[in-house]
Amino acid sequence: MDAGMAGGNTPVERWGSFELQLKGPDSGNPFLEVDLSAEFRQGGRTVRVGGFYDGDGLYHIRFMPDSVGSWTYTTRSNRPALDGKTGQVTVVPPRSGNHGPVGVRHTFHFAYADGTPFWQVGTTSYAWTHQSEALQRQTLQTLAGAPFNKLRMAVFPNHDDRGEPSLFPFQGKAPLGWDFTRFDPAFFRHLDGRVAQLRALGIEADLILFHPYDKGHWGFDRMPPEVDARYLRYVVARYGAYRNVWWSMANEFDLMREKSMADWDRAFQVVQAADPYGHLRSIHHSLRLYDNNKPWVTHASLQNGSAVEDAERAVLYRDVWNKPVVFDEVKYEGDIERRWGQLSAEEMVLRFWIGAISGTYVGHSEIFDDPQGVSWLAKGGTLRGGSPARLAFFRRILSDSPPEGLEPIDKWQDYPWAGKPGAYYLGYFGRATPRNWPFALAKPGLAEGMRFRVEIIDTWNMTVAQLDGTFEIKKQGLYSFVDKDARSIALPGRPYMALRIVRLA
Amino acid sequence: MDAGMAGGNTPVERWGSFELQLKGPDSGNPFLEVDLSAEFRQGGRTVRVGGFYDGDGLYHIRFMPDSVGSWTYTTRSNRPALDGKTGQVTVVPPRSGNHGPVGVRHTFHFAYADGTPFWQVGTTSYAWTHQSEALQRQTLQTLAGAPFNKLRMAVFPNHDDRGEPSLFPFQGKAPLGWDFTRFDPAFFRHLDGRVAQLRALGIEADLILFHPYDKGHWGFDRMPPEVDARYLRYVVARYGAYRNVWWSMANEFDLMREKSMADWDRAFQVVQAADPYGHLRSIHHSLRLYDNNKPWVTHASLQNGSAVEDAERAVLYRDVWNKPVVFDEVKYEGDIERRWGQLSAEEMVLRFWIGAISGTYVGHSEIFDDPQGVSWLAKGGTLRGGSPARLAFFRRILSDSPPEGLEPIDKWQDYPWAGKPGAYYLGYFGRATPRNWPFALAKPGLAEGMRFRVEIIDTWNMTVAQLDGTFEIKKQGLYSFVDKDARSIALPGRPYMALRIVRLA
Repeated sequence: MDAGMAGGNTPVERWGSFELQLKGPDSGNPFLEVDLSAEFRQGGRTVRVGGFYDGDGLYHIRFMPDSVGSWTYTTRSNRPALDGKTGQVTVVPPRSGNHGPVGVRHTFHFAYADGTPFWQVGTTSYAWTHQSEALQRQTLQTLAGAPFNKLRMAVFPNHDDRGEPSLFPFQGKAPLGWDFTRFDPAFFRHLDGRVAQLRALGIEADLILFHPYDKGHWGFDRMPPEVDARYLRYVVARYGAYRNVWWSMANEFDLMREKSMADWDRAFQVVQAADPYGHLRSIHHSLRLYDNNKPWVTHASLQNGSAVEDAERAVLYRDVWNKPVVFDEVKYEGDIERRWGQLSAEEMVLRFWIGAISGTYVGHSEIFDDPQGVSWLAKGGTLRGGSPARLAFFRRILSDSPPEGLEPIDKWQDYPWAGKPGAYYLGYFGRATPRNWPFALAKPGLAEGMRFRVEIIDTWNMTVAQLDGTFEIKKQGLYSFVDKDARSIALPGRPYMALRIVRLA
Repeated sequence: MDAGMAGGNTPVERWGSFELQLKGPDSGNPFLEVDLSAEFRQGGRTVRVGGFYDGDGLYHIRFMPDSVGSWTYTTRSNRPALDGKTGQVTVVPPRSGNHGPVGVRHTFHFAYADGTPFWQVGTTSYAWTHQSEALQRQTLQTLAGAPFNKLRMAVFPNHDDRGEPSLFPFQGKAPLGWDFTRFDPAFFRHLDGRVAQLRALGIEADLILFHPYDKGHWGFDRMPPEVDARYLRYVVARYGAYRNVWWSMANEFDLMREKSMADWDRAFQVVQAADPYGHLRSIHHSLRLYDNNKPWVTHASLQNGSAVEDAERAVLYRDVWNKPVVFDEVKYEGDIERRWGQLSAEEMVLRFWIGAISGTYVGHSEIFDDPQGVSWLAKGGTLRGGSPARLAFFRRILSDSPPEGLEPIDKWQDYPWAGKPGAYYLGYFGRATPRNWPFALAKPGLAEGMRFRVEIIDTWNMTVAQLDGTFEIKKQGLYSFVDKDARSIALPGRPYMALRIVRLA
């Protein structure tokens, strides 16, 4: 599997990955004993990245340049064979589809480094990289045709799945005979390839660095603190140069009873210190929230089974943290007995729309009863649910929205509209089945005489119908502007309808 | 007006107020130049309290003892006349109705120091102490017959009210000719009396220390930082010995553009350092939340116009801060044109019930159009709304609930029940008008064969009807226990109904 790295004298695209390979000592324990890093310089800037040992006496240093032109590097090591190596990297403009890493923009939203908005439409498949090669290929194929631009996935395997994976992150013997001082490069080379394949598909890999589903079976959920820290630095050294990587400290961190809040703070700090690119950092909870106000958290990654059923719920956390809010887990589409896996496709899609008009983002997954015990949520494979097609439609609507992001309009009024005041309005009626919507917009940004066009969006049947004519507004009362002729918009009396109202120049 | 202080050799009740009066210098500027404090000792304990200058060469030191028996004191001052004074205070058990100061209990709830639960039913009258003597007396009379056990009130006058008060916190000339180095003791003696009167009524005084409604008219909203700090220490020295005082750093702090977040952090720290009793500390916002995770915040004091319309909204902030949540401002009962003052009595009461079953607390106020421009919210006087009577009923129901507080049960399921699993359930149907409720409780704490009695509560008409017979439960599915004979409870098809279900021994 190709790790997606450029090396030697091959020019590297901006936000692509350069890899320097060095021959070094293979005696002793290189994972513990060899320090290796490099400084990449361009003009007055220096970017320092950590290297890592890949086995067989081979050492790698990976680098993601964020500007075109010539960069030089110098290595630093406590081993002469690896120290003081210098060279040059030529960086060329990014190829089409490469917009750089995703970061936070406009407080509550995301954008790629080149300014392109990133409209997060996420999914989760925890252990897809730990399945059979055939199943992993199928997962990639599914993703290629699916609407998702972010995938939550765990580095460590998942004991809840039963079945033993063929590769493990440490050398030794499953289930508990690990040498925690020696990573298994084969495991990570495999993961390199998967992350590179997601990158090629335009999918962000939200790498879950710890999770509680080991339950002591392999013990990756209860390693000593120094092993945790070494693991985190190794992961950052290997994956930091992939522009599509996000760091999720944990899934359901609060279910990992062996770790304290201080452990999580430290994990964030280790990752933050090791990562020169500032990839997005979050931590996902079950019941107890992490304090997302802490400075190393870039966005909230939440679990909540009901917040995105209602826009006035979903909006609340934004004000607490003043950071993007991603409801990564909102229950799943499926048909299992557990009530977290029983959403209809309609309800799954509704949550994305509610999230959007609340100025937040949502995550999908699905879990259907399967004779082979394969679910998208746990292992990947194919998607059986009815939501992905509607989420593709949803993502297209999002992508046509203002690049600043959808901001809730007129909060506290049970007014299901978001957009950009005076310019763009997206309203969503959810489960309600109105036959009529009296044209009325909240006053911020509006003035008498402004004109608008209106489209009726059926979010379930995936249609957009533009209304003939335009609407001109006049003020009504303290808070609203209405159509000057008091016109209403006829609606079909079905659920899941939305309106898009755009101001005419 | 009596300041409610015991002095000399009069025994002081536990959590009562002792005041030591000393004669000292009246030359120069005693507010600035004289340091005064005292250490009160009992056994191995020392409580250090600040003193304050009350004008005319008189200095006071106030102390709220928290245990009975004999205490001794020694004063400390940079003036010989005030330094090294010693004496003794005899503390006797509290009189009936004195339960001590209110603190946080069971993470999300409140209790008095003697362990009695404090079920917060708050109201707000910002500037009642700045009105005519007749109006203030009327306000106190109203409060004596009202259900409220907490009153939010501002120390500084409110320019939005128009009308100039007769007393100001600083010496000098209104509106802007203040000597910010000299407090006016007459202003504070007046406030002493009001706080003491509230204490006698069993009402907590949530003292709002800053607010934005001055708008530069008197400039109390934009004093220099050292004046703010001196003011805060003076207030803590005067009022800390009243057990019914809470510190609210500000109302709508984020509307005070002259102050930064760092200013608020410092204000909290000044108050915390000066107050040896640890009175409750919060800060109330308009749109931008303060980070209530900060250690000096004891509870969240929120404004939100819609969160307590729905239990799944109201519950969300609890998990963020793991502190009590008080929705102090949820829009008001009234009939004014502004939509924040248009709640029907039914809607005002609904918010208290939703708050309660979400494990949070709510605040009331009202604003009706009035030819004299008097509203309860702004100035006090009488209450005209329909909610207070229902809130008295509500408070009685609360007071009969488990002393640990009402905890939401089975969150994320749109399941409007709170209580104590396995023992006590309070359910509220809000605006819904069910005719029937199939007996079903969420499984935590339950086992087959448990028996319950049921009461139907009409929260609006203020009736409690106990059903004949009992309900015995059996398990149904993964999550519920139901009546073993699958019985339902008939309901009247009206809104605002509640059920109370209590387990039989």
